[in-house]
Amino acid sequence: MTQDYPSLQGLVCPLPLTHNDTIVLGHGSGGKLMHDLISRHFLPHFNNPILMKGDDAGLLQFAFDGQKSLRLSFTTDSHVVAPLFFSGGDIGRLAVCGTVNDISMLGAQPLYLTAGFILEEGLEIALLERVLTSMEIAATEAGVQIVAGDTKVVQKGKADQLYINTSGIGVLYPDVNISGSNAQPEDIVILSGTIGEHGIAVLEARGELGFSSGVKSDVAPLNRIIADLLNSDCRVHVLRDPTRGGLATTLNEIAQQSDICIFLDENSIPITPEVRAACELLGFDPLFIANEGKMVVIVHPDDTQKTLEIMYANPYSENAKIVGRVQTKPERRVLMRTVIGTTRVVEILSGELLPRIC
Amino acid sequence: MTQDYPSLQGLVCPLPLTHNDTIVLGHGSGGKLMHDLISRHFLPHFNNPILMKGDDAGLLQFAFDGQKSLRLSFTTDSHVVAPLFFSGGDIGRLAVCGTVNDISMLGAQPLYLTAGFILEEGLEIALLERVLTSMEIAATEAGVQIVAGDTKVVQKGKADQLYINTSGIGVLYPDVNISGSNAQPEDIVILSGTIGEHGIAVLEARGELGFSSGVKSDVAPLNRIIADLLNSDCRVHVLRDPTRGGLATTLNEIAQQSDICIFLDENSIPITPEVRAACELLGFDPLFIANEGKMVVIVHPDDTQKTLEIMYANPYSENAKIVGRVQTKPERRVLMRTVIGTTRVVEILSGELLPRIC
Repeated sequence: MTQDYPSLQGLVCPLPLTHNDTIVLGHGSGGKLMHDLISRHFLPHFNNPILMKGDDAGLLQFAFDGQKSLRLSFTTDSHVVAPLFFSGGDIGRLAVCGTVNDISMLGAQPLYLTAGFILEEGLEIALLERVLTSMEIAATEAGVQIVAGDTKVVQKGKADQLYINTSGIGVLYPDVNISGSNAQPEDIVILSGTIGEHGIAVLEARGELGFSSGVKSDVAPLNRIIADLLNSDCRVHVLRDPTRGGLATTLNEIAQQSDICIFLDENSIPITPEVRAACELLGFDPLFIANEGKMVVIVHPDDTQKTLEIMYANPYSENAKIVGRVQTKPERRVLMRTVIGTTRVVEILSGELLPRIC
Repeated sequence: MTQDYPSLQGLVCPLPLTHNDTIVLGHGSGGKLMHDLISRHFLPHFNNPILMKGDDAGLLQFAFDGQKSLRLSFTTDSHVVAPLFFSGGDIGRLAVCGTVNDISMLGAQPLYLTAGFILEEGLEIALLERVLTSMEIAATEAGVQIVAGDTKVVQKGKADQLYINTSGIGVLYPDVNISGSNAQPEDIVILSGTIGEHGIAVLEARGELGFSSGVKSDVAPLNRIIADLLNSDCRVHVLRDPTRGGLATTLNEIAQQSDICIFLDENSIPITPEVRAACELLGFDPLFIANEGKMVVIVHPDDTQKTLEIMYANPYSENAKIVGRVQTKPERRVLMRTVIGTTRVVEILSGELLPRIC
């Protein structure tokens, strides 16, 4: 997911933080506050070139016989979604798919996961069983194995039923070079499908929507689409999944990492009528709503059609659309031609929109 | 740590569990209840040969050119210790050392960690800074890099200040074959130092001791001792760190995995007077108390002296002692010659001794 210490070095933080401050929910939003917390407090302690690259996963190289090397994608995600079950998914499916997708976004085939559970005293084991069953189904679908685990229990009132950390390893496809810093001017920006479903589905499961939207979370493993893309000769430059912070935040991260401008066409961004209606009612911008089964593919312009055809053939990206293009200026910005024909700046998420969405 | 899905297939569970049951603190103890939870509910869903091996980490093999292969050790641990700071350490040092040690116990050099944080709303950032500083120091000491991270925030009352998951990867030393299932009859059982410090130090930090024991946690990275051992020609068969569940539980796991008997000599088990006094006062058996900087080394009898000399040269194992030997029968048992000359069975930890010790 895009929240994993993305391109942080250059992000401007308008909110001064001092050591007298405390953690607020916005620090988990995926937006400005989180980027600032990470760049001010985490990165100075964990400073190394792999982490500072700012992608969804760390790229590890293991030299072999002085000639070839094995390249691995290594990532982690803790999952604290509330409630545990929502239309279209649950914390178990989310925990497997989130890490599978983060591994994949570096151009890797996910292979092995670990699972760390924090259980609250009093949790029904039948409920845990449902979550584990869901994890098993998602792992089978994605083709990954859970090879190590850990279980901790905390007293009642010290967790919220259960939290799951999944970490994972994948092997990079041969000769690929995928990174948020690889977007090139003239590249085409493709979105794999409609946005906003996951956030709205979780909100509805909390009873905060006030009506039945019929929206289901899109939580899904994207690794098979990526396998098809990277086994083709399409020149894919960037892959990233717009999770916490939504499409707007993800595209801003890429624009910053690649030092380019992404120019979006609002008309072409696919949004279902149900998500649009829910967002209008709640005053949310769907560009900031989390997705868990969507990705941005930035590709060489000559390979656009072929990329789309590969994506159309996969159920999880059959509604893929061109939503924008890359241009040189203004650097480190996302602009959008709106439906009424004006151009506006699309900012990174500021503050907190929906806590505990993943 | 020994709690990571150890040798579970053969453990007898005297406590019938049904789906009407709920999680209790004992499910996180490292003992019988946890083994039962894992074998009944986790393993059926995550059944694969790597996980079922039952070691502290999963052993991954990446074939290369059809001839050679890269062998990696991959593990995870969530840390929920309360309080966050205790004499001799804190949750940050624990999170780094715990995973470094788990990777190492497979005979691997730990290289890369991920860190996933669950932060409680209202947590002081100054406190977070202290923990991050401690993680940095421990990572530097162990020689590992933190290459990916994740930060989640939950509402006040949904966590206890902060929880940290660390997952990690290491590369196996050439030609080693270390596993809890490799103990051989006649092998010698070496313990790297005194037991019980970590558990007593955490208990004292909670104010539950009622007096000042002066005991400091032993939390430390053990990878450099293991590097020295495995770069020598000592025939090391088993490495394992006696964390949750203590030495008794760890040795029982090994006895079960290797289908042998471990025969201990109580007189030779090193325990400081301070830990002994605290245990006597509280009615605890130090054999069940968690350690975070100790390990069991089971070695070919002809290499005992050389192994001890290597261990004496390292500050974290300078008090290493021979504590027992491996024999064929009774299989899957740990026996102990007591200080008064009788022989007793040493059981795996049953129920809960100290919750949230790591």
